[in-house]
Amino acid sequence: MSHMSDEIDQQPYAVALTIQRLRPLAEPIRRLAAGRRHVLFAGRGTSDNAAQYGRYLMEIATQMRAALAAPSIATRYKTELDLSDTVFITVSQSGRTDEMLQTQQWAASRNARTIAITNDPASPLATEADLAMVTMAGEERAVPATKTYTSQLAAIAVLAASLGPGGSSLEQDLSQVPDTLTELLDRDGIDEAAGLLATATSWITVSRGLTYPTALEAALKLEETCLRPVRALSYADLRHGPSAFLDSTTAAVVIAPPDGPLLDGLTRQARDLRSTGVAVVGIGGDDSFRATCNIARPGPRLSELLAPLGLILPAQLIAETMARHLGLDPDRPRGLTKVTQSEPGPSVIAR
Amino acid sequence: MSHMSDEIDQQPYAVALTIQRLRPLAEPIRRLAAGRRHVLFAGRGTSDNAAQYGRYLMEIATQMRAALAAPSIATRYKTELDLSDTVFITVSQSGRTDEMLQTQQWAASRNARTIAITNDPASPLATEADLAMVTMAGEERAVPATKTYTSQLAAIAVLAASLGPGGSSLEQDLSQVPDTLTELLDRDGIDEAAGLLATATSWITVSRGLTYPTALEAALKLEETCLRPVRALSYADLRHGPSAFLDSTTAAVVIAPPDGPLLDGLTRQARDLRSTGVAVVGIGGDDSFRATCNIARPGPRLSELLAPLGLILPAQLIAETMARHLGLDPDRPRGLTKVTQSEPGPSVIAR
Repeated sequence: MSHMSDEIDQQPYAVALTIQRLRPLAEPIRRLAAGRRHVLFAGRGTSDNAAQYGRYLMEIATQMRAALAAPSIATRYKTELDLSDTVFITVSQSGRTDEMLQTQQWAASRNARTIAITNDPASPLATEADLAMVTMAGEERAVPATKTYTSQLAAIAVLAASLGPGGSSLEQDLSQVPDTLTELLDRDGIDEAAGLLATATSWITVSRGLTYPTALEAALKLEETCLRPVRALSYADLRHGPSAFLDSTTAAVVIAPPDGPLLDGLTRQARDLRSTGVAVVGIGGDDSFRATCNIARPGPRLSELLAPLGLILPAQLIAETMARHLGLDPDRPRGLTKVTQSEPGPSVIAR
Repeated sequence: MSHMSDEIDQQPYAVALTIQRLRPLAEPIRRLAAGRRHVLFAGRGTSDNAAQYGRYLMEIATQMRAALAAPSIATRYKTELDLSDTVFITVSQSGRTDEMLQTQQWAASRNARTIAITNDPASPLATEADLAMVTMAGEERAVPATKTYTSQLAAIAVLAASLGPGGSSLEQDLSQVPDTLTELLDRDGIDEAAGLLATATSWITVSRGLTYPTALEAALKLEETCLRPVRALSYADLRHGPSAFLDSTTAAVVIAPPDGPLLDGLTRQARDLRSTGVAVVGIGGDDSFRATCNIARPGPRLSELLAPLGLILPAQLIAETMARHLGLDPDRPRGLTKVTQSEPGPSVIAR
């Protein structure tokens, strides 16, 4: 088996350790954020997808205003924004990407309070932040991030639970996450889902709201492991243009929460996709959603707020399986390395 | 010729009229925004791409904080955010999308001041907003938006000029936009660019910073007219995963500003793409950038801040030409209509 497969299986343990380690930070997090009503997240790649989850979760569960920062505003335009009302959260597995370090330094210089979410407590990102939330994923050997991603989501959930109303259901539900992740490691039905995708020439992923970031991450996993472009779309965006290219050569992975205000729309969208000939692999949802899809895998027994911590697991398994079916090595995608710098061209060697 | 081709040609006039009509709103805009330091934009499809430009331009040219709102936070989660520090800007060509109207109503109920950017002064979006910035694009008959998009960008540029430091270069440069757009309507080289794209099986668009939204809109035009998925990527994001799928079956449209802190990185990225066998169509940049591409079209003689108003024109021409080469009707993409609602399934008829 691949490292990626092993690391997918390690997620319940990595997430449990991360939650256990970070929960005692609730009080320091509240002190750091005192009087600040805005949250800005920054990340690239998988960490950006984790940040996207943070943006939705913070606005829904804490009613703080949340948005994604554009790193170029910090590192290239060096814009003199006033961040004195803001907690700035930088997400980076390695904590060693120059761009993210510079972005955090810029935020601090603009009077933000800074939190680093990283897997390496010795990294410059962690040591320079006002507060480091260190994930406990252990070493990740496959290039496509799996356990570091779900550990980042766990850190973000602890952050939101710390800043939301006291005694929130989010705080209580965190304890149930590891056990329900274990149930999702079952490979039953994964080969069939991969087989359905293999019949299509073009793939998309679809969701909306809190689970839209899961669609982004599922698309990135398929891109990294299977070496082809995959668009991730909110179903509302899908209807504003991209729906033009859908036909029977397309397969869609539709990701739905177990409940909440978007489940009904996602069920209707899955039906619309099938009616245009698109093959639909469903992940999550309820019985009615899954009955609408060609093939479906259940999601975690968690509320919509925490469902993204589990919904990505079937997508990771499908991506890893697809890669092996295609004769590709899921651990070492062509042209990628584990610590990514954001600048093209040959490295400049300083004298 | 197609309506789309005619409407591409009407852009210098539509943009000139829009700037002329909206410039006198500078003082009302300043009054409306007095004491507010945050801007939130909302839009879908092409209007979302215009909003993305607004988000960069506002932070760079006015130093107000700017972000994109997630409409589902408003319409589905009905989150009780405090927007009393915010100007909320809704962008919609028709002004008649239920989702955008509900989003604006939500923002007003959360104590935002609201501005509607729309092409229809009689639309509910315009009449309900605190201030309507009505674009002067006239009727648009092709489904892919062209002149309504650049008119939205012009409205956003007037907004930023109104809220930026007095006597800014942005304000002065606005007068030069219409003439330089006219120069970009030259079809010279468009067939060759379309021909190069036609040799590839997979297309991406690439940029970063202020011109990244142009890459998003170029991708959407190619999707709508040529009925295939196109990924738009910041070059920094490209390096975090999607670069794995690049090879000689891929063509990239790389969009670069004439100057500014990202031109050098985009030139190096164009070179990196060519070295992996990707066919590169360049739009904009300087002589060095264009010499790096397989084929390149010049951009507008405008500063980076306003360059997006012109950089999209060659991309529109390429998309329209590609569609006709493929035997498709650029005016009526399969499955799309001019006023898009964001919900799937059969319409509910109210009694």
